[in-house]
Amino acid sequence: MSEFKIGPLNHVGVAVPDLEAACETYRSLYGATDITTPFDMPDQGVKVCFVNLPNAQIELIEPLNAESPIANFITKNPKGGQHHVCFEVRDIDEAVVEMGKRGATVLGKPRIGAHGTMIVFVHPKDSNGVLIELMETPVGAH
Amino acid sequence: MSEFKIGPLNHVGVAVPDLEAACETYRSLYGATDITTPFDMPDQGVKVCFVNLPNAQIELIEPLNAESPIANFITKNPKGGQHHVCFEVRDIDEAVVEMGKRGATVLGKPRIGAHGTMIVFVHPKDSNGVLIELMETPVGAH
Repeated sequence: MSEFKIGPLNHVGVAVPDLEAACETYRSLYGATDITTPFDMPDQGVKVCFVNLPNAQIELIEPLNAESPIANFITKNPKGGQHHVCFEVRDIDEAVVEMGKRGATVLGKPRIGAHGTMIVFVHPKDSNGVLIELMETPVGAH
Repeated sequence: MSEFKIGPLNHVGVAVPDLEAACETYRSLYGATDITTPFDMPDQGVKVCFVNLPNAQIELIEPLNAESPIANFITKNPKGGQHHVCFEVRDIDEAVVEMGKRGATVLGKPRIGAHGTMIVFVHPKDSNGVLIELMETPVGAH
């Protein structure tokens, strides 16, 4: 079997109904000083920004419209909530092949994620109910 | 206002119905090689262990009994799910005072957590539906 393994915990994805309000919470309640400027990802139906912590990030995600993949999540959790956990991997194609061999359900094909590298999601049923994102480590990181 | 702020993301807490099975998932599916030996925390009603990643941890938590504070969570989420996010703080008493001043609902008094340092939880309503644990940075860490 390949020695494929996950690397660092890159970020925790938190779905929120209002991105600006969520940024303000991290600023005013938790003293976060390094929050990236929000940007739209129309292909994914979301608007995102990152709260940079010394070792990892909180990804804040707001649905762009009612068809957004996270619109249902916000309907069920109107205040927002933890949506996914993202681990870095060295090579996304190796990750997809290995996760398949190991019996996991990879959701769709790899695509460009919010950090500009390839990502893919693994079904929550495979990982104790937690939606896992696998993301190629950005070049130059770590 | 105090300059209180959160430090690193220490861990993501994942509630699971079966700790051994969850460890095996991280080993066999994600290639995790460094998982701590599970131990009971009877005062908290939980059994826990940690999946050590290069920069942070996944805390796996199984309810010890039906009275466990996470027993309800497992009833609602039989496969398990993301339970909390833990940020490190320098001083737990400063954190409690400041969070109170800033309008957050701190749940109970600080107590010893699974890392042997003082912890406290902040109500999910204050942070986009996410239960936040604040934990004093262990001496010698980082």
